[in-house]
Amino acid sequence: MSPSTTIIRNQWYVAAYASEIGAELFARTICGEPLVFFRAEDGSVVALADRCIHRRYPLSKSRRDGDRIVCGYHGFTYDRTGACVAVPAQTRIPRSARVAAFPVVEQDSFVWVWIGEPDLADATAIARAPWLVADGWTTIRGLQTIQGRHALLMDNLMDLSHETYLHGGYIGTPEVAETPITTEVDETAGVIRVSRHMDDAECPPFYAESTGLGGRITRWQDIEFQPPCLYRLHSRIAPQGHHPPAGYRPGADHALDPGAFHTEIVYALTPETEHSVHDFWMVARDFATSDAAVTEYLYTSNHTVVMQDVVALGIVEQTVAEDERRRGDVRELSINIDTGALAARKLMTRLARAQAAADAENAAARA
Amino acid sequence: MSPSTTIIRNQWYVAAYASEIGAELFARTICGEPLVFFRAEDGSVVALADRCIHRRYPLSKSRRDGDRIVCGYHGFTYDRTGACVAVPAQTRIPRSARVAAFPVVEQDSFVWVWIGEPDLADATAIARAPWLVADGWTTIRGLQTIQGRHALLMDNLMDLSHETYLHGGYIGTPEVAETPITTEVDETAGVIRVSRHMDDAECPPFYAESTGLGGRITRWQDIEFQPPCLYRLHSRIAPQGHHPPAGYRPGADHALDPGAFHTEIVYALTPETEHSVHDFWMVARDFATSDAAVTEYLYTSNHTVVMQDVVALGIVEQTVAEDERRRGDVRELSINIDTGALAARKLMTRLARAQAAADAENAAARA
Amino acid sequence: MSPSTTIIRNQWYVAAYASEIGAELFARTICGEPLVFFRAEDGSVVALADRCIHRRYPLSKSRRDGDRIVCGYHGFTYDRTGACVAVPAQTRIPRSARVAAFPVVEQDSFVWVWIGEPDLADATAIARAPWLVADGWTTIRGLQTIQGRHALLMDNLMDLSHETYLHGGYIGTPEVAETPITTEVDETAGVIRVSRHMDDAECPPFYAESTGLGGRITRWQDIEFQPPCLYRLHSRIAPQGHHPPAGYRPGADHALDPGAFHTEIVYALTPETEHSVHDFWMVARDFATSDAAVTEYLYTSNHTVVMQDVVALGIVEQTVAEDERRRGDVRELSINIDTGALAARKLMTRLARAQAAADAENAAARA
Repeated sequence: MSPSTTIIRNQWYVAAYASEIGAELFARTICGEPLVFFRAEDGSVVALADRCIHRRYPLSKSRRDGDRIVCGYHGFTYDRTGACVAVPAQTRIPRSARVAAFPVVEQDSFVWVWIGEPDLADATAIARAPWLVADGWTTIRGLQTIQGRHALLMDNLMDLSHETYLHGGYIGTPEVAETPITTEVDETAGVIRVSRHMDDAECPPFYAESTGLGGRITRWQDIEFQPPCLYRLHSRIAPQGHHPPAGYRPGADHALDPGAFHTEIVYALTPETEHSVHDFWMVARDFATSDAAVTEYLYTSNHTVVMQDVVALGIVEQTVAEDERRRGDVRELSINIDTGALAARKLMTRLARAQAAADAENAAARA
Repeated sequence: MSPSTTIIRNQWYVAAYASEIGAELFARTICGEPLVFFRAEDGSVVALADRCIHRRYPLSKSRRDGDRIVCGYHGFTYDRTGACVAVPAQTRIPRSARVAAFPVVEQDSFVWVWIGEPDLADATAIARAPWLVADGWTTIRGLQTIQGRHALLMDNLMDLSHETYLHGGYIGTPEVAETPITTEVDETAGVIRVSRHMDDAECPPFYAESTGLGGRITRWQDIEFQPPCLYRLHSRIAPQGHHPPAGYRPGADHALDPGAFHTEIVYALTPETEHSVHDFWMVARDFATSDAAVTEYLYTSNHTVVMQDVVALGIVEQTVAEDERRRGDVRELSINIDTGALAARKLMTRLARAQAAADAENAAARA
Repeated sequence: MSPSTTIIRNQWYVAAYASEIGAELFARTICGEPLVFFRAEDGSVVALADRCIHRRYPLSKSRRDGDRIVCGYHGFTYDRTGACVAVPAQTRIPRSARVAAFPVVEQDSFVWVWIGEPDLADATAIARAPWLVADGWTTIRGLQTIQGRHALLMDNLMDLSHETYLHGGYIGTPEVAETPITTEVDETAGVIRVSRHMDDAECPPFYAESTGLGGRITRWQDIEFQPPCLYRLHSRIAPQGHHPPAGYRPGADHALDPGAFHTEIVYALTPETEHSVHDFWMVARDFATSDAAVTEYLYTSNHTVVMQDVVALGIVEQTVAEDERRRGDVRELSINIDTGALAARKLMTRLARAQAAADAENAAARA
């Protein structure tokens, strides 16, 4: 791992679940940038820099006046575009008086935000997770902010062999660690696919409880990760030997595969700072969709598993940071299971290079 | 704001209220310098460096033996001038064995201390606040140590328009933010004067309760700040239209202005470290001086207002420090209300330059 | 004191009491090196680097499988020599897959570990403290990890005059501070001896309670310190005027000195990090060896005294660190009582120079 990853700003990131943003001013740091969010009177989401331009008081500690924010310290007032529209004791507003406003897109139950160069923000490039809002699906979800860098969560999710050890008794069984993976990189789309198809596997308690399946199963894990943010794990469980139709595309052709249980596990990985990451986690299912007991069970189990990761990654962040301090570099040893993670790092490096090029171009344009 | 203010040492600072210093050893850090104070047997205040010269144990964790301090670790003993007068297991005392003693002046209920070059300490230059000990006045007081730099508290106090937003419902009313100020700098005396005279204003709850005034009022705020430490706000309240005699000097001619209510609000701003400041606050009044209910009410209200500042400045310190870390500089936007604060910064810069010149001269004299 | 002591690695250090290491994985940082310990099935102690080579997860957060450790994150498995013997999803083990194993010696109730160049580890060079496991002796013991650097604990123990001030009422009496010491350095053995023989002293409560002695006593303190780790204080108490036979060697000839009470106070000083030290403390006695009340009393009293040191050294670490930050150097003043401590620092400097030479030789050999 490179000792310190520069955050890639020219990308869309999930800033919040749509349900988190309402009338109240809402503070969250995204990519090291303190932001204030609110839902305007027309229902759309506003994202502004969370620092008054006068004396840097956080706007999130202030109050709304319609679609305006009135700073809680000296009353500087901003509209939803970030323009300052009132200051105390004078009528003239300085021309430069404005805070940055950030492009926002609300989609698939997320609030996406673009922190980088606004001109490059292309909403059609945002990765999708349609199951989260589709009919016939039920989703549980949560958010943990991990005291560990984005790269550690990426590593964790790209190599599911850790399920056997860290999450044994929940979603891990011996077959996960034993079954080799196939890895595929779509350079054009910027997507990595990692597949592990277990044809004859033990059914982990996690799935036995929620599907009612006993005995041996066929278990497919098909990961699609589009760095830096959206991770989708298409999980297919069926009685052992029950195969999907030819040409079946995981994550897309659920309707063509009626005898199986489909779970779409979605993560959004959004850097909070260089050394912490927002871990948005969701589990959507197309079975037992209105069974509250299954919902409750899946929420509790998944929350437990996520918390195991939160604890483990917090520990690894400390060991990595300590080793960086002591030696200046951190040695690792990678094997076959890491192919997906290494491919993800490679794509991240490409994105970082693109960011550096854009920054250089920008600097040249200003000079 | 400049990214990091160097503390100006060749100045008098309020180290404590006189009532805080008694027989017990008392530790307080002033301008980054850990000090130990005590009241000697003759009643005068002693201030020494709070570090034994032997192995740097804090003398404040030690015990007194008359006017001597016996170090709690190995028994090195110091007299009130800082000279070491006893060491264990030998009779010879090394000649260099002494801790620094600092000039101290007790005046206007304060213990002032001089941290810089002792030869430059001129007690006649200390700013005055006579109301704090005068007959016919009653004072309430407190001390909060703010986790924010001296410059932030200076900013806060020099621009009272924040009363309307941060202290609304206490001392703020719309007129404070709306009424323009006049600013005047006396370069020779090193004093900034900021005046805001509201001829027709709402009476804030704060004053209505304590004076019994109803209806509209005339409200004057006349600030005199002598950087770096002593801030005085001469507050005059009277029924609307009731004016003082011609030539009336706020803060001085109270006796010539019998129909008004005078409050002398005093702050001493003493850096604890580069990033924290002792906020000594006092409110002296010449009305209802023996009314315990008014005293109690004013204490509670002022304490609340000060705590609003403590919280706000702690937040601003964090945002400024974070922005300094991230960008190396912190942008601000100043408008008319900031004239007084900017004048204060300018005087602080002049004092800092004088300090740098004195340091250079000192260094040259040693070489 | 030099601003920052480099830890000397090519030395034996006490890592734990033997009784601390059992079947459970046991984490402790020694000389800045995170280690995991366990007692193998044959009863011997194993010490490995506490970092999986794959993604740096701490092995101490993992589980044992016989004499192997299975990493809790992805299942990398290590044998007791540190060799990796299994990885997930493949049979080939990369040749470089191993974590460092550290030489360990179990002796005198300690687990000693060697962090440095393994070829230089000579078990016969380990300092001894035979009373801790000898017949006819009873020992109480404890461990505190002090938030202060190794050098501060060394200073503390080499100059017992602090007993009078810091530990007054326990083991300190005026005579300790008043009686001069003699200091002797054996350069070949790398041992410092500091002796203080008080022929006519008050009996501190500490000893009066445990020995039953009243009245004046003869009290000898003979320190033998072999930097960096093992400190032995041979304490001899007898009724005033009762002398040992000619040629009596403190710490060795207890049997030739029947009328006296012997206490062997042992400390092991093991750096945890640059700024913290493990303080292993033991008190062995040859009197009242099966008296549980005396054992209880001595444990409580010694624990109290050690905690006084823990608090004081934590404070001194803070003052030293603060002064280093502020000025870049920390001035001290040493007198006669510091002769032993200064001799210890000098030996430490010699060991540090030897370490630097070995490191240079190593680097040259690799180039």
